[in-house]
Amino acid sequence: MKNIYFTPGPAELYPTFYQHLQTAMDEQIGSISHRSKQFRDIYRFADEQLRTLLSIPDSHGIFFTGSASEVWERVLFNCVEHESFHLVNGSFSQKFYDYAGALHKHAHVLNKPFGEGFDAADIDVPEYAELVCLTHNETSSGVQMKPAEMHKLKRKYPKKLFCVDMVSSAPYPDLDFSLIDSAFFSVQKAFGMPAGLGVWISNQACLEKAEYLQKSDSMTIGAHHTLPTLWKHYKDFETPATPNVLFIYLLGKIAEDFNRIGIDTIRKQTEEKARMLYKFLETSDTYEPFVKQERHRSQTVVVATTGRKSPADVISTAKAANMIVGSGYGKFKESQIRIANFPAVSADQVAALIEALKK
Amino acid sequence: MKNIYFTPGPAELYPTFYQHLQTAMDEQIGSISHRSKQFRDIYRFADEQLRTLLSIPDSHGIFFTGSASEVWERVLFNCVEHESFHLVNGSFSQKFYDYAGALHKHAHVLNKPFGEGFDAADIDVPEYAELVCLTHNETSSGVQMKPAEMHKLKRKYPKKLFCVDMVSSAPYPDLDFSLIDSAFFSVQKAFGMPAGLGVWISNQACLEKAEYLQKSDSMTIGAHHTLPTLWKHYKDFETPATPNVLFIYLLGKIAEDFNRIGIDTIRKQTEEKARMLYKFLETSDTYEPFVKQERHRSQTVVVATTGRKSPADVISTAKAANMIVGSGYGKFKESQIRIANFPAVSADQVAALIEALKK
Repeated sequence: MKNIYFTPGPAELYPTFYQHLQTAMDEQIGSISHRSKQFRDIYRFADEQLRTLLSIPDSHGIFFTGSASEVWERVLFNCVEHESFHLVNGSFSQKFYDYAGALHKHAHVLNKPFGEGFDAADIDVPEYAELVCLTHNETSSGVQMKPAEMHKLKRKYPKKLFCVDMVSSAPYPDLDFSLIDSAFFSVQKAFGMPAGLGVWISNQACLEKAEYLQKSDSMTIGAHHTLPTLWKHYKDFETPATPNVLFIYLLGKIAEDFNRIGIDTIRKQTEEKARMLYKFLETSDTYEPFVKQERHRSQTVVVATTGRKSPADVISTAKAANMIVGSGYGKFKESQIRIANFPAVSADQVAALIEALKK
Repeated sequence: MKNIYFTPGPAELYPTFYQHLQTAMDEQIGSISHRSKQFRDIYRFADEQLRTLLSIPDSHGIFFTGSASEVWERVLFNCVEHESFHLVNGSFSQKFYDYAGALHKHAHVLNKPFGEGFDAADIDVPEYAELVCLTHNETSSGVQMKPAEMHKLKRKYPKKLFCVDMVSSAPYPDLDFSLIDSAFFSVQKAFGMPAGLGVWISNQACLEKAEYLQKSDSMTIGAHHTLPTLWKHYKDFETPATPNVLFIYLLGKIAEDFNRIGIDTIRKQTEEKARMLYKFLETSDTYEPFVKQERHRSQTVVVATTGRKSPADVISTAKAANMIVGSGYGKFKESQIRIANFPAVSADQVAALIEALKK
């Protein structure tokens, strides 16, 4: 019997994935040239479907990388001459900040404790910060930052570039791309695919910054997957190097499935399932939601403290019922579990998980 | 009816690929955590199989990236403080050289015309070059450099780091890894997989260089997929970021299939099929082998000039017989075709292609 993966990525594959993969194999998508019309049509299709799904305007290009972690590096290389600014409240926002240090950028940081979230009112962006790095969903702690707060912040600092890590939440957050310059995600989270593809959405302002930095003798924007090269090839729906053609095909097909359901419905379903999970945690005499402020609770990665139960036992019990729950992140393995609430799992499956957690 | 892809990558999928993919889907490899024992076992297995196949000693680690093009950048970031040296005789060796320029390295170059190859006797490595960048198989022109010539060169310059691009030939070249410090390939060529995974083999000397450079305040070795981070995680068969778990699984399985056949047999079969192709080209009154020097003729990507026939017509005729032949690279589209000779195509299929090309 197959397991249902409630892990925060890699995660349960979206139910239609298998059929799309079979079609791809039948059509020999794994063998076609990335310089062929057939590939350009695949890229164009994925681009159109993602644009519809996430309301991405023409000002932004959609590019493919090896992973979302790669984009942390690329956006810093391409959009920061001297200074970046990071909101850090968990392991993944911390890594984004650490990448800036590794590239010798002057990285400013506003820290909050693990499990707490940010609102626009908390934040003063340093004067010379060029890029503001936000994390919509901190996968390690289950904290989200509301898009409305991000938009408010950008309105206060309209001249700065804003970049949003939405790795473990896209397509859930309703970002206004007239305000957000760059955003990125990976496909092994809410898109229900295996890992191996990053998606980078970025606008003309980011491109112009990269082109300006590229002229400098004293710094580099990198050599691989630079914004100017990505954009140049993107105009013809091509890529500078051979990309993961198969996964781009599959992503387009799954985005099309999402569009058939409708993004509003997907968001409502996500919220409804999250409500079920948080209600269970709040009314349980064992579990508790880890994130105290309701407005900061992630809708896509629900983190629970397991109280008098050990997380290992909870995970084992769920596994016996063929449900795989994520462990707490790092040292929180000892006191927490993480439950992914992605479109691949249905409300019925969430209800079944809740029953299993009660045992 | 399915096509047979004789294209130089993406290429024909290895015949066992489909069964391995089905097993991976049955075992839900696309959903497992990259921090699980199950993933570490997959990485360890791929590592063991590649080590056996390519005779890789313990001095070298095996790492995974998004593509081989990414490795061009990574090896230059991690192993070059000031100066690199490149042998350039086609579009891909040129790109490796261009990447060095984009990273503001002082890149020395020895050029040869498209279609010509290098021998050790031709080459003086500049005094201060830290990394010697060689291309075993120039995919654009069908020229190879013999491993014996690479080994000879390294013996002449033992203190310099040697890096070999074997993107479109591995596992064919019999590299002596006691002499070659670093090498890399991608899986969509001779391993018969879809594109989306790069493999980087690199030794302790490269790691030490990266660790030394990382201490500098004035330069960066990048932030993503740095050698020190890759190596640190590799010790536990993990990766710094979420890798393409599914493709690592599939690569291990295909490498195991290759090992069952035996690398000597695979190399002999490759040479036998190459002999068939070159013999046909030499005796044809239409086609000619593009590479004049026999010792420089690639065994894995055979480039032919099509004489009085137009390449477009040749490609169409082959396609009508369900055989997909590669076009010439860049401006050579007008006069050449490229035929990949990877393990996924059998001697019988090569014979059938030759018959179709005769028409």
